[in-house]
Amino acid sequence: MKATGQTFRVGIVGGTGYTGVELLRLLASHPRVTVSVITSRTEAGQPVSDLFPNLRGHYDLAFTDPDPATLAAQCDLVFFATPHNVAMRMMPELLAAGVRVVDLSADFRLTDAELWSRWYGEPHACPELLAEAVYGLPEMNRAKIRDARLVANPGCYPTAVQLGFLPLLEQSLVDVQRLNAFAASGVSGAGRQARIPNLLTEAGDNFKAYGASGHRHLPEIEQGLGWLASDPVRLTFVPHLAPMIRGMQATLTAELVDPTLSLEDLQTLFEDRFASEPFVDVLPLGSHPETRSVRGANVCRLSLHRPQGRDVVLVLSVIDNLVKGASGQAVQNMNIMLDLPETMGLDAPALLP
Amino acid sequence: MKATGQTFRVGIVGGTGYTGVELLRLLASHPRVTVSVITSRTEAGQPVSDLFPNLRGHYDLAFTDPDPATLAAQCDLVFFATPHNVAMRMMPELLAAGVRVVDLSADFRLTDAELWSRWYGEPHACPELLAEAVYGLPEMNRAKIRDARLVANPGCYPTAVQLGFLPLLEQSLVDVQRLNAFAASGVSGAGRQARIPNLLTEAGDNFKAYGASGHRHLPEIEQGLGWLASDPVRLTFVPHLAPMIRGMQATLTAELVDPTLSLEDLQTLFEDRFASEPFVDVLPLGSHPETRSVRGANVCRLSLHRPQGRDVVLVLSVIDNLVKGASGQAVQNMNIMLDLPETMGLDAPALLP
Amino acid sequence: MKATGQTFRVGIVGGTGYTGVELLRLLASHPRVTVSVITSRTEAGQPVSDLFPNLRGHYDLAFTDPDPATLAAQCDLVFFATPHNVAMRMMPELLAAGVRVVDLSADFRLTDAELWSRWYGEPHACPELLAEAVYGLPEMNRAKIRDARLVANPGCYPTAVQLGFLPLLEQSLVDVQRLNAFAASGVSGAGRQARIPNLLTEAGDNFKAYGASGHRHLPEIEQGLGWLASDPVRLTFVPHLAPMIRGMQATLTAELVDPTLSLEDLQTLFEDRFASEPFVDVLPLGSHPETRSVRGANVCRLSLHRPQGRDVVLVLSVIDNLVKGASGQAVQNMNIMLDLPETMGLDAPALLP
Amino acid sequence: MKATGQTFRVGIVGGTGYTGVELLRLLASHPRVTVSVITSRTEAGQPVSDLFPNLRGHYDLAFTDPDPATLAAQCDLVFFATPHNVAMRMMPELLAAGVRVVDLSADFRLTDAELWSRWYGEPHACPELLAEAVYGLPEMNRAKIRDARLVANPGCYPTAVQLGFLPLLEQSLVDVQRLNAFAASGVSGAGRQARIPNLLTEAGDNFKAYGASGHRHLPEIEQGLGWLASDPVRLTFVPHLAPMIRGMQATLTAELVDPTLSLEDLQTLFEDRFASEPFVDVLPLGSHPETRSVRGANVCRLSLHRPQGRDVVLVLSVIDNLVKGASGQAVQNMNIMLDLPETMGLDAPALLP
Repeated sequence: MKATGQTFRVGIVGGTGYTGVELLRLLASHPRVTVSVITSRTEAGQPVSDLFPNLRGHYDLAFTDPDPATLAAQCDLVFFATPHNVAMRMMPELLAAGVRVVDLSADFRLTDAELWSRWYGEPHACPELLAEAVYGLPEMNRAKIRDARLVANPGCYPTAVQLGFLPLLEQSLVDVQRLNAFAASGVSGAGRQARIPNLLTEAGDNFKAYGASGHRHLPEIEQGLGWLASDPVRLTFVPHLAPMIRGMQATLTAELVDPTLSLEDLQTLFEDRFASEPFVDVLPLGSHPETRSVRGANVCRLSLHRPQGRDVVLVLSVIDNLVKGASGQAVQNMNIMLDLPETMGLDAPALLP
Repeated sequence: MKATGQTFRVGIVGGTGYTGVELLRLLASHPRVTVSVITSRTEAGQPVSDLFPNLRGHYDLAFTDPDPATLAAQCDLVFFATPHNVAMRMMPELLAAGVRVVDLSADFRLTDAELWSRWYGEPHACPELLAEAVYGLPEMNRAKIRDARLVANPGCYPTAVQLGFLPLLEQSLVDVQRLNAFAASGVSGAGRQARIPNLLTEAGDNFKAYGASGHRHLPEIEQGLGWLASDPVRLTFVPHLAPMIRGMQATLTAELVDPTLSLEDLQTLFEDRFASEPFVDVLPLGSHPETRSVRGANVCRLSLHRPQGRDVVLVLSVIDNLVKGASGQAVQNMNIMLDLPETMGLDAPALLP
Repeated sequence: MKATGQTFRVGIVGGTGYTGVELLRLLASHPRVTVSVITSRTEAGQPVSDLFPNLRGHYDLAFTDPDPATLAAQCDLVFFATPHNVAMRMMPELLAAGVRVVDLSADFRLTDAELWSRWYGEPHACPELLAEAVYGLPEMNRAKIRDARLVANPGCYPTAVQLGFLPLLEQSLVDVQRLNAFAASGVSGAGRQARIPNLLTEAGDNFKAYGASGHRHLPEIEQGLGWLASDPVRLTFVPHLAPMIRGMQATLTAELVDPTLSLEDLQTLFEDRFASEPFVDVLPLGSHPETRSVRGANVCRLSLHRPQGRDVVLVLSVIDNLVKGASGQAVQNMNIMLDLPETMGLDAPALLP
Repeated sequence: MKATGQTFRVGIVGGTGYTGVELLRLLASHPRVTVSVITSRTEAGQPVSDLFPNLRGHYDLAFTDPDPATLAAQCDLVFFATPHNVAMRMMPELLAAGVRVVDLSADFRLTDAELWSRWYGEPHACPELLAEAVYGLPEMNRAKIRDARLVANPGCYPTAVQLGFLPLLEQSLVDVQRLNAFAASGVSGAGRQARIPNLLTEAGDNFKAYGASGHRHLPEIEQGLGWLASDPVRLTFVPHLAPMIRGMQATLTAELVDPTLSLEDLQTLFEDRFASEPFVDVLPLGSHPETRSVRGANVCRLSLHRPQGRDVVLVLSVIDNLVKGASGQAVQNMNIMLDLPETMGLDAPALLP
């Protein structure tokens, strides 16, 4: 069912995690892209469908050892679905070979190498590319993404939070020194790693905050909100772990600078701002978005409230952390970079129930 | 992204349940079909995306009152996604108007009107069509389905159980008087109805058998197994409710007539029998299929065991109860009836994790 | 295993919900109390263990029609485990008959009848008792509870939020005009009612905010926080539904009036304030309480953070919504009223995993 | 609240797993027992309540390195809550020192050392004690348990399956060559180990069979059923993993030797057999036991069916795998050994919802 036109060959570095299998799932239905390489140091030689039985019949591909030369030879574009500290080591060689990259890891999200090393506890291995890397939130940076060699795909929390605050900050409507983001994520946000706290027996039927004193996504969020506000912002950000597989919900509050602004005005502002965005959906007034409404889909759904009619605006924002919060947004960025229709391969509805 | 060729118009009667929303989800990605009508007595006038927020942006369609004349005028094919006892009342008029039907309810699954009324507690309203109705298990009845006016789409348990036993019964390899099927279903199998036992607080973190003295799917299963065996069969069938949304697993056991038959022989038999079936996947020896490997996908995955090397063969069979167990199989039947590629609209991988 | 001393007879009005069964569970292990009456209009005549199989072997008691005279004759103390609008109709007669009452419903939580009727949409039926009713948060009102005829047992959100803010407000350490409470509850908080949104298929693997424009617990919380602060407060309160059975987590933020106050100072303040409270547990610095650590137990666990070292204090508070958030606190209040050891019947550890 | 009489000191070897924390939870409410030692090689020095926050306030005890001499000096009775292959190495020294032992591991469950080493892949380290060890299913072996030095606490599947078949086998009512047991367990049955398949993201919303070709509990079950039947039996046993924390359900089928035996006869047989058993509950005809009805409680609930009135008897059996399937049964055995009331510390109702 591949549509007419050139077929692009893409590679995935680090394909054994959840963002890797989600890229494979999404790309299996993409009419103009073929996955030509998928790498894993630990699983080299093993067919991807042995690790991910949902892919049986969809891929006849085995993991290989990561090798920049091979990637350069066999791929037009490469996704990094690795933990931080991998992409930044291979990046110079790949870019030099003419490969374009969408990096789903945190390596190129912060433009400030100092800030990066403060949060990640080691020096940045490739600071010379930080200025060139384009922050891949299409709703903010579409034009730059189109021509980028290197796109830093946003984190899941940053995506949910930035999209929710975006119109308020662009229009300078709220006190940027007093922003709050309370967010809850499904356990897949923690990756496919054998850790006791993420066992069903530990994370099931349980709810907790984590990283309350400081989460690595905070500097990325504040950086992005600062760009939107054209001013430094201050955010209290508290992430939580919810007993579910996928899904992320952010509850955002801010104080209105002008309390005479009505909820209806704000609703119009949001609807107008996102009217032409294919993957942001502003719900009608009175709504509460649910994470299940975006399960498996590359959509952020938002709704607005003004609790008690007071001068606080409340934005509710949901995404699938693995899709609009990771692999779906990466495919969206790829589509933009390859001059394909932005929604290509991303238009299936969410799985509900 | 509609492919070339005629576009067919389909209708859905009773679209407020889980099989209804699943039909809508699957058909949204189908390149040759448009949903032109969706009915609901209780929700008439309401947009489908108000009830099912995953469909926002995918359908600009509202529920209407069910009316055979309208359905006949606007649809080439109609799905019934109703409880039993609805389809059989509208069927004569629809068929007379030249509409073809895939009925997801139980109304036309049993060929014996007496048997039907014993299990459903009332007379069958349309016994004259029972002989014509084709039982819509494509792996058994593909040729008949192609020309059918009325296809009775199998139940979820019957699909998982029949596909698992199929090669054994066709080849008369097991004692058909001593078949066992232990099966577990996600809660979506109980439908979208406000019932206390299906609350998250009641069904969550809980496991139980139900219908142990006799479940309505039993006669359908025994009928189908009887066709496969060309002989009446006797099955002990125990369904269970598992604390999950989707998914069905059947564990089937039978005594081998010829105990010298090796597990490898059986494996070959299964692989050969299903080699050309697009939606049945026989796993390698030693495997245990998981329901999540088919979440959202129109696939039945099977594996074979011979516990302790004794003369019992064990088949494990998983499906998504809403897809291969209901709406996906209905679309598969529709594809066959409309002479479309059988996999059209059904080739997306399962959602994992 | 009943200890020496008088045995008290208690009644439960409205015993078919989750707070009812939880009272029965807790009281089954209480050495000085016997449940003599349990009422239900809809289930009169049915043994409680038919409805709640966990109670088989523990109670030989059937539901009866609610009748004030019978309750007065057979009970020293009565719990109301009813929806709002029931207790306030029976209260005068019961009190007149000398029965003492712990009301788990919302009827007597607000002291302002106007405010009550604004949120509940009807006039209060018994405003003359509002002044006498004692708000049953023992950590705030222990002395008054001891002698009360009528104790209004707090709601679950109010309990988690008030305990978390308590030391900060008592000591006037934070800006009371800018309080935030984001809270998540398990589905049992919605009661044992047949509603589609609470089905496992709808609430499972899902997270959402609700009541964002105004939840009925807000006035109760603001009233209690106002008492603690000796001043009106302004709270942004957003409740969420988490896909779990039990458990409630509140994430509270406030701006420190004196930013030189260190996190260690705040920790000491909390530890001192709750040192003699048997059911409030302040975790060590750096902790994040988990709802599962209080599953089934009458405990509120708290921890403190100061995100990024900024002038915001963050309190994390977890309870079991059915225990410290409802029935456990009711038993605690009963113990105080009956001059029994406050922890009697409430000292079993939480169920983990 | 310790009752009058001697207080016994018990030790727990290997207390970092789920059976360890469950022993601690249960013993916290036991009026005649104090936990004096709890060991862990990996966590020595750490307070138990750091690892298990539900125990905060209940234990002032830290893990220590396991040492037989210390255990002997400080304990009247020792529980082994270890993986297999630990207890059998320390056992001779402990017994020699006069300590009595309840071993929750598999080391002494099989009386045949050959069989043990076939299933566990190594020689048994202490075959000389196998004959002395008493299989700790009180409903079968109460008298022997009373005087035992060493009790081998049954596995969870064996408990659920043996109790369900017990009256049928004792009375020789079924064909013991054709027994079937399909069973489903919550994930806590797999222990508190960091394994990817047991992550919430992998085991959640999922159902699968495992060990279908042969599970280590099978020889233990067949051994126990053989004792009951006074004859070797043949069982097809298929365990499954259900997406829940606790709970185990077994669905047992057998062919009646005498088909004229009515379901009512069988019901009477079961009720009579278990009438004086405090922890076996035979439900009324027509029931289906639920695992949540025993969550946290030391109970096995059973119900009987005769599907379709055919000559097959179906027994449904539920337990909490960590309680009657492990730690609760261990406490029950301890009570018997110490001549305490058998139900002491085990009489709290299950946690529902």
